[in-house]
Parts: sequence; C-alpha cells; structure tokens
Amino acid sequence: MQDALQSALAAIAGDSVNVTAAGRTDRGVHARAQVVHFDTGASRPEFAWVRGVNTHLPDGISVLWSREVDPQFHARFSALSRTYRYRLLNRHERPGIEAQYLGWFHLPLDVDAMRAAASMLVGEHDFSAFRSSECQAKTPVRNVHQLEIEKRGDEIHFTIRANAFLHHMVRNIVGTLVYVGKGKHRPEWVREVLRSRERSKAAPTFGPEGLVLERIEYDMKWGIPQ
Amino acid sequence: MQDALQSALAAIAGDSVNVTAAGRTDRGVHARAQVVHFDTGASRPEFAWVRGVNTHLPDGISVLWSREVDPQFHARFSALSRTYRYRLLNRHERPGIEAQYLGWFHLPLDVDAMRAAASMLVGEHDFSAFRSSECQAKTPVRNVHQLEIEKRGDEIHFTIRANAFLHHMVRNIVGTLVYVGKGKHRPEWVREVLRSRERSKAAPTFGPEGLVLERIEYDMKWGIPQ
Repeated sequence: MQDALQSALAAIAGDSVNVTAAGRTDRGVHARAQVVHFDTGASRPEFAWVRGVNTHLPDGISVLWSREVDPQFHARFSALSRTYRYRLLNRHERPGIEAQYLGWFHLPLDVDAMRAAASMLVGEHDFSAFRSSECQAKTPVRNVHQLEIEKRGDEIHFTIRANAFLHHMVRNIVGTLVYVGKGKHRPEWVREVLRSRERSKAAPTFGPEGLVLERIEYDMKWGIPQ
Repeated sequence: MQDALQSALAAIAGDSVNVTAAGRTDRGVHARAQVVHFDTGASRPEFAWVRGVNTHLPDGISVLWSREVDPQFHARFSALSRTYRYRLLNRHERPGIEAQYLGWFHLPLDVDAMRAAASMLVGEHDFSAFRSSECQAKTPVRNVHQLEIEKRGDEIHFTIRANAFLHHMVRNIVGTLVYVGKGKHRPEWVREVLRSRERSKAAPTFGPEGLVLERIEYDMKWGIPQ
C-alpha cells in the first residue's frame, strides 16, 4: 500500500515522495480511513492530490481528501487514538462472500462472557502478553479507551480504540477473547494473562482478514477531517 | 462458480455432478445465498456434502447446508422469488476498501426522487426496456414485489425482489434510477421508459460489483432453509 501510494504521489509531484502513516496495517488487514502525511516542494491544487493520485493507484486504494497542514503535524505522533474493528463470522460453515473481510470461528461463542473479559483490558496496562515478538515499540504500555463487542446476525464485531497499539495487539486480543467465548477459560483468566505479561499465556494471533483500521483521532486544531 | 462447485461435488460423489442454480450471477456479481440442486446416485452424510465439499472449493465460495429434497423440487423452477441487493457508494471519491462489493456514483443523488421513480417499477410489467440483448427468457414480463432504497451513510442500498429477473435487469434499473437521482430526468420518465419497452430508452447497465443475490424464496413445503 505504502509503495503504491508513494509511486502515485510521485507521479503528481514530479519528484519522489515519502509518506508517514498513522496506523499500521499488516498484510491482509484493511483500512477504511488511514491518515498519512508527506513533505513536498510541489504545489498542486487539492483535486490533483486526490483525483489525480487516484488515477495512479491500483484498485482497492482511494485517496479521500488532501489538505496542507501545519508543519508541526505528524500523522503518527499527533494522533490521539486509533480505532480498529474486527469482524468475526461465527457460524459452523466457513465464510463465502466477503471472505477477505471476515475472521471466522466455527463453534458458538458466548458474547456475554467475552464482554466480561474485554472489560478487564480497558484502561492503561502493560500489554506485553498481547505483543508480537516482532514488535518494535519502546514501551508495552497502552491505554485502551474502548473495547466493545456487538452481535450482528451471525457476525461478532469487536471495536477497540486505544492511544496506540502494539504489533498484533488487536488480533491477539480477539484470539484471547475467543478462548473465553468458546468456554476454554473463564473471563477472569484474561486478567491473569494481562498480569503475566507473557505472550505465551495468551491465545494465538487471530487471522488478519477481519481487521479494519476504522479511524484515527486528532486534536481539532489540526483541522483533520473525521 | 458453477464449475468449481461441480468439481468439488464430484470429488465427494465420486462421479460427475451437474448443478442447477436458482439465480444467475454474472461475472463480478456476488451471492450471499444461492440455492442449487443436483441429482446423484451417491449416498453421503450431510456433513460430507457441506464440510467435505468446502474443502474442495476455492476461497470465496462456501456451502452452508445440504438436504435431500423431494424429486419434484427444482432450484430454479420451484423458486417463488429472488431478492437482490445493490450497494452503491455515493461520494465524490472512488471506492477503496470493499471496492469489489460496491457500485459507485460520484455526484450527489436525490434519494427521494429515486424512490418515487422506483415505485413505478413495482408490480407486473413488461420489462423489455431493462433487458439485455443477450437475454434468453421466453417472456419479458416480470413481477417486482418490492423495490426499496435506503440511505446508509455514504452508501445507497437498493433491495429488489421479483418472481424472476431478466438478464441485467437489476443493473439496468439501478442505472436508470441513478439518472433520476442525479436530476437528468424526472421520476415520471421511468414510467415512459418502462412503457416504451425499448432498451435504448433506459440508462446504460450499471457495474456488477455492487450486486448481491441475497435470497431465494420457496414454498415452505420444500423444507428449504431461509
């Protein structure tokens, strides 16, 4: 995604462009609203940075807006929080339509138990137990502002907002909540996992398909569209 | 889809299998719930026709259930009606995420005008004006039971249920309603188009991406899951 965007921007700028993105999206993970910034000496009208760039982008990526910003603005460091959503198909049969946008678990899940477990992850904690070994963050402490679980037909939607996320943190949390939902562990087990700070105590990383970066929140002073 | 399904069924049946589907899905069109029937001499437990077949299917197709049916049942001819949904992204910028599941129109659409126009298509009519030149149906008369238009954020969802559909009928109707929505014609124009029975009077066929076969309705006596 980053390479494709940089090439498209370079075509409009007439010079190479390096972008900095607000939130990471691993292979197979989607973004509904990524925010990136870049420096350029090129002066182009806003529609060139949107429609012009889009003509150079592959299907599945689309620039929605562009804005000249204060030089102090930084897509990643200025972000107050990120919101991810995980869509889990919970039925016996595997996904058909929209398979590339759905995680899948085949046994019935107890949503109330998952909600009880999820509440133990809200707040500021050391999330080492939910951190991939490849994570390069300086600190494992993150502040989860919100972790909501909704049942929608045969799907379960996890919405999680935090100041920032460790590598694989959402997918590791979803996997761990599924362990609770299927009855392998009681909700309280999630608190033990969290306190252990050991990755080996939590469940395996859930698949990337269901994960979408939904929103990046900034201070209003930057004038970033929501 | 049909080829992949027939190969997967053949692997379980140990013999070639021909399937008959209830509703057509052209290239790029999706189905959430297709119904097919086939004859076979093979006797297998139901889970073999579901999970077994799924292991032989490519990603994006999934068998949800299987049932032995009355020999009189015919997936296509026993169907009372089909329901399609068309998802149209209505914003200036092209689709990014879910691009393969979204039609797109870039100018603001007047949903009320489209609803007024849509109401003129409900009922039993000769739909020749909305019929592709490749259509092989014996008669152009179809009964549209329902045609609803919902605004959901920056998407417009068209839900259309009819006893049956002509080739490209839904996509031609969507294109024609978009002509009304963008103000090129008044809602009453759709009645003129319908009465003309001339394909050239209606709008061009809209793209396949947004179209999903949602449901096939049968008489309860057949015991087909909904």
